[in-house]
Amino acid sequence: MAISHLHCLQSVRVAFPCRPSVSNNYYYGRENFTRKGSSLVYASTNNLNRDLHLQSKVETVLDSVKWDDRGLAVAIAQNVDTGAILMQGFANREAVATTVSSRKATFYSRSRSMLWTKGETSNNFINVHDIFLDCDRDSIIYLGKPDGPTCHTGSETCYYTPVFDLLENQKDKEDKLALTTLYSLESTIAQRKGELEVPQSGKPSWTRRLLLDEKLLCSKIREEADELCQTLEGNEDKSRAASEMADVLYHAMVLLALKDVKMEEVLDILRRRFSQSGIEEKRSRNSQA
Amino acid sequence: MAISHLHCLQSVRVAFPCRPSVSNNYYYGRENFTRKGSSLVYASTNNLNRDLHLQSKVETVLDSVKWDDRGLAVAIAQNVDTGAILMQGFANREAVATTVSSRKATFYSRSRSMLWTKGETSNNFINVHDIFLDCDRDSIIYLGKPDGPTCHTGSETCYYTPVFDLLENQKDKEDKLALTTLYSLESTIAQRKGELEVPQSGKPSWTRRLLLDEKLLCSKIREEADELCQTLEGNEDKSRAASEMADVLYHAMVLLALKDVKMEEVLDILRRRFSQSGIEEKRSRNSQA
Repeated sequence: MAISHLHCLQSVRVAFPCRPSVSNNYYYGRENFTRKGSSLVYASTNNLNRDLHLQSKVETVLDSVKWDDRGLAVAIAQNVDTGAILMQGFANREAVATTVSSRKATFYSRSRSMLWTKGETSNNFINVHDIFLDCDRDSIIYLGKPDGPTCHTGSETCYYTPVFDLLENQKDKEDKLALTTLYSLESTIAQRKGELEVPQSGKPSWTRRLLLDEKLLCSKIREEADELCQTLEGNEDKSRAASEMADVLYHAMVLLALKDVKMEEVLDILRRRFSQSGIEEKRSRNSQA
Repeated sequence: MAISHLHCLQSVRVAFPCRPSVSNNYYYGRENFTRKGSSLVYASTNNLNRDLHLQSKVETVLDSVKWDDRGLAVAIAQNVDTGAILMQGFANREAVATTVSSRKATFYSRSRSMLWTKGETSNNFINVHDIFLDCDRDSIIYLGKPDGPTCHTGSETCYYTPVFDLLENQKDKEDKLALTTLYSLESTIAQRKGELEVPQSGKPSWTRRLLLDEKLLCSKIREEADELCQTLEGNEDKSRAASEMADVLYHAMVLLALKDVKMEEVLDILRRRFSQSGIEEKRSRNSQA
């Protein structure tokens, strides 16, 4: 199947791949080609050849996917920072080619028999950073960053119906997102924060005490960081290091809750720094200055 | 459809649900029932009633799933600690019921037209902690902990074929796992650690310098933890807190690399502590002692 929607014949431009570092070459191809200078025509001819080569490569990758008898493969959108599975749909060749080209997670709607890009009505696009195929090449991950809630219900992800809670009749927990450990912990801390105004009898939980006593919290963060360092300095067992890191992470996350900072924001920062070789570059520069 | 495999008519035992906290009631039901004491018969009758009630609830949940025309729904296995998508298969009613019962991720093989439990030949089971349905109830997450590599190739997950790298002809990167930010950072640090023996020209990266200088690394961890605390103590902007947390996390992860500790181990500790109300309980006990 030709991926005809990718062609822009008037400008002889093919809009993939769109990795940020190289995409400008393609996006600005049209302007170059409409000017008259011979060097620009030459540049555009080079671009054209490169584009055709890339298109051929996309076709080759798409040929390697094991499409089912309806021409579909499962496509799962995952948050690149949190790992949350945002939604799952199906993709055909055109949907994957469009995702490669536009960097917006695109699926094939089986009910409407047409392509649809998540966010085309809600504006909550999923900006795809990478695409992975599985070992059988019949399942695809769109690894990306959502602009907003993914689910049409307004929920962050589509997976908020926990089966075991349903079986235990915990209907109040029906809207519980499928959270992995780090975010489950974050959610527990946020819950404790939300309960601070509620008077409690009995011993307060440790999280509640930390949330209510900034001095205690900060002394614990410094203490746990120190203990983590001691596992290296004192050549302690690796299990001690893991345990101290757990302490550092937990106490630091209580502080983040007080500052209204989500772990997702922290990971977003780390991704940007590392994708730009940022931390390494900055630190190296600073320390060598 | 009756979930007949769940029945164990000889012992009148129905083996779900199997949440660790309650499962023994069901697993030991058989022994109780075969003894003769009237109190034990009474206890087993109670168990029987409860089991039948639970079976009816499982049926109700399964009825709510929108099975496709082949009686299947997409089932995605995700690592509860790291968020990694381990594999994707399909499940029918029986596969989900078996997963509920056994707590081992179970699928329906379309090629072999039979149930299969991941790990039944490799022993690398995926131990399911929770199951989530999506908003349309036609997609399922098995959130669990794998006993070992999930992929039949020996890879940690089945998703190790990055499309953009294929398009850029980076064949050496063909076996690149689909990693989210935290694990991508961990992988980068591990790579730097692996290169320590290789002589380098030019400025060393910041990570390399930290890996080679434990004193520098520990002073940075203490410094960054202190700066994180200052964002709370000094009522600094929340963006400062996020940035300082990123620094804490990154530097602490360099230490973990030196100690050969994976973030997954740290998260495993946190999950166990919190699922047992561990940290809160322990800390509360210690500080009030």
